[in-house]
Amino acid sequence: MYRPQIKVLDCTIRDGGLINNHQFEDNFVRAVYKALSEAGVDYIELGYQASTKFFSPDKFGKWKFCDEAHLRKITEGIESKSKLSTMVDIGRVILDEVKPKKESVVDMIRVACYVKDIDKAIAHLNVYNDKGYETTVNIMAISTALAPDLEEGLAELALSPVKAVYIVDSYGALFSEQVHFLVELAKKHLNPKGIEVGFHAHNNQQLGFANTIEAIRKGANYMDATIYGIGRAAGNCPLELLLAFLKNPKFKLDPILKIIGEEFLPLREKIEWGYMIPDMVTGILNQHPRAAIAYRGNKEKVGFDEFYRSLLNDSELS
Amino acid sequence: MYRPQIKVLDCTIRDGGLINNHQFEDNFVRAVYKALSEAGVDYIELGYQASTKFFSPDKFGKWKFCDEAHLRKITEGIESKSKLSTMVDIGRVILDEVKPKKESVVDMIRVACYVKDIDKAIAHLNVYNDKGYETTVNIMAISTALAPDLEEGLAELALSPVKAVYIVDSYGALFSEQVHFLVELAKKHLNPKGIEVGFHAHNNQQLGFANTIEAIRKGANYMDATIYGIGRAAGNCPLELLLAFLKNPKFKLDPILKIIGEEFLPLREKIEWGYMIPDMVTGILNQHPRAAIAYRGNKEKVGFDEFYRSLLNDSELS
Repeated sequence: MYRPQIKVLDCTIRDGGLINNHQFEDNFVRAVYKALSEAGVDYIELGYQASTKFFSPDKFGKWKFCDEAHLRKITEGIESKSKLSTMVDIGRVILDEVKPKKESVVDMIRVACYVKDIDKAIAHLNVYNDKGYETTVNIMAISTALAPDLEEGLAELALSPVKAVYIVDSYGALFSEQVHFLVELAKKHLNPKGIEVGFHAHNNQQLGFANTIEAIRKGANYMDATIYGIGRAAGNCPLELLLAFLKNPKFKLDPILKIIGEEFLPLREKIEWGYMIPDMVTGILNQHPRAAIAYRGNKEKVGFDEFYRSLLNDSELS
Repeated sequence: MYRPQIKVLDCTIRDGGLINNHQFEDNFVRAVYKALSEAGVDYIELGYQASTKFFSPDKFGKWKFCDEAHLRKITEGIESKSKLSTMVDIGRVILDEVKPKKESVVDMIRVACYVKDIDKAIAHLNVYNDKGYETTVNIMAISTALAPDLEEGLAELALSPVKAVYIVDSYGALFSEQVHFLVELAKKHLNPKGIEVGFHAHNNQQLGFANTIEAIRKGANYMDATIYGIGRAAGNCPLELLLAFLKNPKFKLDPILKIIGEEFLPLREKIEWGYMIPDMVTGILNQHPRAAIAYRGNKEKVGFDEFYRSLLNDSELS
C-alpha cells in the first residue's frame, strides 16, 4: 500500500545544470517539463534564482537565474498539475529581486545551506514565506555534521514556517544505517510541528536510490530524484527507479522511460555523469567531489589507485 | 568493527564471461587474478566446469570449462592466498570429469540451481564434498520462490555438507526488506548447523551493492562481487564498493582501483554491462533479463516506453 503523503520532486534541470553551467536548450527543457508533468511528479525544479549581480549571464545559462518571463515561456501551453520550484544558495540571491508569489509561476523556493548557516537559511525562508511561497531548507554535506550542531539547527527549523527540511548527502557517503539515524533525528524535531523530512541522495557509491528508499522506510516524505540520475559528478537518485518503486497510481513511468531514450541517452554522449571511480573515491572518503571533478578534467592522469592514495594522504593529519 | 567471518568471493571472470561466451584473453585473466590476490579476496571464481560433451570449445572460451591445466597455467607464478572456485550448472557437467580435490588447484565448487532443483543440487554437492571440495549451493531466481518451497529446500540443505547457501537475486528485483526476510529465513535453517548464508546481487535497479550491505547487516557472511560490477546485463555488486565498505584490514582497495583504470575501462568500450533501461525494466517486473538482452541486441528498436508496455502486457493473464 502506498503512502499518499510522499511527494516526488524532480530536479533534473536544476541539478543537471551543475554539469553544463545551466545551459540547456529551451526545447530540451520543455520536453523534460512535459514528460515530468505526464509522469505526475509533484514538483519540478528548473534551476536557481541566482542574481545576475553575482553571476554573468554570458557564462551561465538561463537556469542559473530562472527569470520569470523565461519560466513562463518554457511552461506555457503544456498541461501540468506539477508545482514549480527553484533553489537559492544563500549569498547568491538578492531578496528584493524575488517577486511575490502572486506575480510568479514558482510555487516553492528551496534554500540550500550548511548546518552552520541554518540561521541565515531561516531568515531567507521567512522572507519567501511572507512573499507567499512554500519553502524547504536543504541541509547540505550532512554526512560531516556533528549530531549536536544538527539537533540545534533542527530545533530552530522546527519553529520556522518551513514545509520540509531535506537531508542532503552531498558527498554520496551515507549508508543505510546513517540514513536511518538522520531521518529519525530530523523527524523527532520536525514532525511534531507538522514539518516533513526530505532526502536528496548522491550516487557516488551507487546508493542514491537505495538510500532514498531507506529514507522513505523511516518516514521521509519529500524525495528528490532526476531523470536517468543526471546531476553533477556521480549524479542523483534516478527518477525512473523511484517512480517504479512507489506504488501510488498517480505516477506514470512511461513518459520518463520514453524521454530517457529520446533525450538522455544522446545527452549522456555529450556530458558526463553517473558512477565513476574518482567520485566513488571521494564518496567513500566522505569528501567534497571537487578533487574528483578536477582529476577527471585533467588530461594527464595518474592511476585511480594513485588518486586514491593522494586523497588518503591528504586526509591524514600531519 | 569488522566481522572476521565475512568472506568475499570475486566472480569477475565467471560472471563476466556470460557477456562474451567466456572468451577472455589469458593476459587479462592473469592480471585480474593478480589484482584480486593482492586485494586479499577470499575466493576467486574463474569460470564454469561445463563439459565439452555439452558445449563446443569452438563457440565458448576456456572459462566455460576450467580445464585443470589451464587453471594452473593462469595462476602459476602469482603469489596468492586466495582460494579458487568454479561454478557448475546442474545438467551441464559430467560428475566423473571432476577430478578429486587432491589433483586440482580448485578449492571450492559452487552448484547453481533453482529452488525446484535443490534435491539435484544436493546430489551434486555430496559428490564434490566426497571428492574433497568445499561446496556452496546458489539458489537462483529466488525473488520468484514461494516461502514454503524455499523453506523445504533450506531444511534439506541444512542436513547436507554444504558450506554456504547463497541467495541469488537473478532478476535484480529485490528491495532491502525482502533481502532481510530471505537472509533471516535462510539463517534460521542453516546457521544452527554451522552453514553460512551468502548473497549474490544483480544491479538492475542499482541496488546490487545496497542489497549486499543489507544482507551483511542481517548476518550473511559469503558475499559475491565483481570488479567494476562486470556481469551479464546490469551486472553485479561492484567489488571496489564492497571492499571499501568492509573494514577488515586484510582487504586492499588499491589493486582493484588500479586494474579498473588499466583493464576495465577499456574493456567496457568493447562489451556492455551495467545499469541500462531495458534491464531496469525486467528488474522492476521481476523477470528474467532475456527480453532486455534480446531488445538490446535488436538493431531496430522501439522506444523504452513501448518495450516496458510490451512486458507489462505479457505479464497480464489473458
